[in-house]
Amino acid sequence: MERRKFLTRTAVAGVGAAGTIVGAPAIAQGSKEMTIVSTWPRDLPGLGVSAQRLAARITELSEGRIQTEYFAAGERVGAFDSFDEVASGNAQAYIAADYYWTGKHPAWAYFTEVPFGMVSSERNAWIKYGGGQELWDEIAGEFGLKCLPCGLTGVQMGGWFNKEMESAADFKGLKMRIPGLGGDVLSKLGASTVSLPGGQIYENLVSGAIDATEWVGPYNDYFMKFYEAAKYYYYPGMHEPSSMLSFGMNREFWDELSSWEQALITACCLEENANAFDEANANNGTYLQKMIDENGVELKEFSDEIYESFGEAAQEVFEETRDHSPLAAKIDDAFQEALRSIGGWMSISDVAYSIKRNKVLGIEV
Amino acid sequence: MERRKFLTRTAVAGVGAAGTIVGAPAIAQGSKEMTIVSTWPRDLPGLGVSAQRLAARITELSEGRIQTEYFAAGERVGAFDSFDEVASGNAQAYIAADYYWTGKHPAWAYFTEVPFGMVSSERNAWIKYGGGQELWDEIAGEFGLKCLPCGLTGVQMGGWFNKEMESAADFKGLKMRIPGLGGDVLSKLGASTVSLPGGQIYENLVSGAIDATEWVGPYNDYFMKFYEAAKYYYYPGMHEPSSMLSFGMNREFWDELSSWEQALITACCLEENANAFDEANANNGTYLQKMIDENGVELKEFSDEIYESFGEAAQEVFEETRDHSPLAAKIDDAFQEALRSIGGWMSISDVAYSIKRNKVLGIEV
Repeated sequence: MERRKFLTRTAVAGVGAAGTIVGAPAIAQGSKEMTIVSTWPRDLPGLGVSAQRLAARITELSEGRIQTEYFAAGERVGAFDSFDEVASGNAQAYIAADYYWTGKHPAWAYFTEVPFGMVSSERNAWIKYGGGQELWDEIAGEFGLKCLPCGLTGVQMGGWFNKEMESAADFKGLKMRIPGLGGDVLSKLGASTVSLPGGQIYENLVSGAIDATEWVGPYNDYFMKFYEAAKYYYYPGMHEPSSMLSFGMNREFWDELSSWEQALITACCLEENANAFDEANANNGTYLQKMIDENGVELKEFSDEIYESFGEAAQEVFEETRDHSPLAAKIDDAFQEALRSIGGWMSISDVAYSIKRNKVLGIEV
Repeated sequence: MERRKFLTRTAVAGVGAAGTIVGAPAIAQGSKEMTIVSTWPRDLPGLGVSAQRLAARITELSEGRIQTEYFAAGERVGAFDSFDEVASGNAQAYIAADYYWTGKHPAWAYFTEVPFGMVSSERNAWIKYGGGQELWDEIAGEFGLKCLPCGLTGVQMGGWFNKEMESAADFKGLKMRIPGLGGDVLSKLGASTVSLPGGQIYENLVSGAIDATEWVGPYNDYFMKFYEAAKYYYYPGMHEPSSMLSFGMNREFWDELSSWEQALITACCLEENANAFDEANANNGTYLQKMIDENGVELKEFSDEIYESFGEAAQEVFEETRDHSPLAAKIDDAFQEALRSIGGWMSISDVAYSIKRNKVLGIEV
């Protein structure tokens, strides 16, 4: 973790990009200030751009009555200090992936993503209309937070590897950057896994300190240049099949908002939740092709044997998570039930249709 | 088409459910009135509820500065008269499926859905970040309209049939309610297809005037009770793999809105665009199981042979559509290219992952 940097408002105004007051018209009378910290580098395409867009949208749609001030990772506090900054009330909101907080409670993972979890359409259905938000409120409430969905990455790629992964045995001894429960799954297969914020991955991969890393998908990964050190790019990732981002607010701040302010923030979050996903999907195919054509990237599919091994290891990880507490078990129960009900429907709708259509039209990468 | 009913504002206030002023706080000074007509029955779960929710949200988030008044199908004009009502400026907006207007221009279909088209995630990516909205603006502009996405049904079921459909030959002579280009595809296979608004399907199916109908998916279909006359329920539909709903505004009205008003309406539409889809996905599995268990519904999958025949017929339909005009050809070109780029990415992300996960976890309907 990085040391927290204390910046006064005056200091911020003097340092350019850091702490931008976004989208502000003339400051409205009686406006509320909302300091937002995030876990993403400022202008990272995808994640960084999405976070800034959301901060600006809240100011815009509220006509400055909610005045957001946005700090990217490291501009006010280090990426992984965002949680404490908001829970303590030093800032009002973070934009992050809640699975970064599994050290505080392992069930946070279910609200970003867990191995063998839901694709984005399934996760949205669960969170918004299947009881997921109520469970998210319960765990967040224990830490003085209120979280809303504010972005989705889609199915993440399995990662960048400096060698071909031909069987589950190839994971033994592999040094890989993969956080959360996905990392725990690979550890069961004998990999040595680490969690590093985005800004530190490239140097570790190039130096050989790690052999492999996952990040997001082609649109986000392209700009990280991992292909310079690891050219085998595997799909599909089992570790993060949707990865929902979280707009985590200080709970006391949230409770004191008017119902209109709450509704407005909710609408902005849900709009961006869709936008981030849609933007990634519109760009992933293009950037994947670009990396294959221009950077010598080799696209590879994990074998069924590897997936079976992932599945067995994931089962052990879920059992350990459930053992943590009654709340963890309750969340796992609800998640697994929703996954089977919603996932069953998706298997005969989006999935069954896509398979048949792609066969008839010859659609493939 | 139904005869247009002229109702004065005073008359509306006296007739209860029709023309509800929704979510209104004290009427704001300088507020704009926005009359919304729709093609859906008022309280139909799914479509009808979604449309009312959107109308209420615009009033709520604008704090009554945009005052919406919502009329379900038949309350102000008949479902299929919504287009003229808004294009003429009699009302400011409709909530509808734009493929109802293919009689005015066949390329309207691309903005709801076409056979062998995009699933919802693909369509959102195309419309919002892949150039789709610009083409939608172009065709809408020719009719004095501006449209925004405001709902998605997800992959529609193939329909309700009063006999088993074992091969493409079984479609010969079949009388089926299926509108738009999907209907044209089945006509190529020898079916006799009709377009009927939702409120008239049940009676035609029960009387035997039609042998089959498609509507939406389990959550919407359950309430229509089609299973009383046709118990074979086929998946996946090739005719509407996402079906985006349209918030179609009078173009002059839209152009005169402030940028804040435009942004607010856009955010509300995009929020509901996601909500409608998520709500359907959360409920479809449950309602499908309910119909199988309680109503003797038999779930069936279209064979690959039938899908191949659908595909060949669809190709002819697209060629006819392209022949209509340069604009139709331009839209088809852009759509088919985006489908292959975005669909290629989805084939190695959502689809590849779902197949592997469902196999490992044993997820099925």
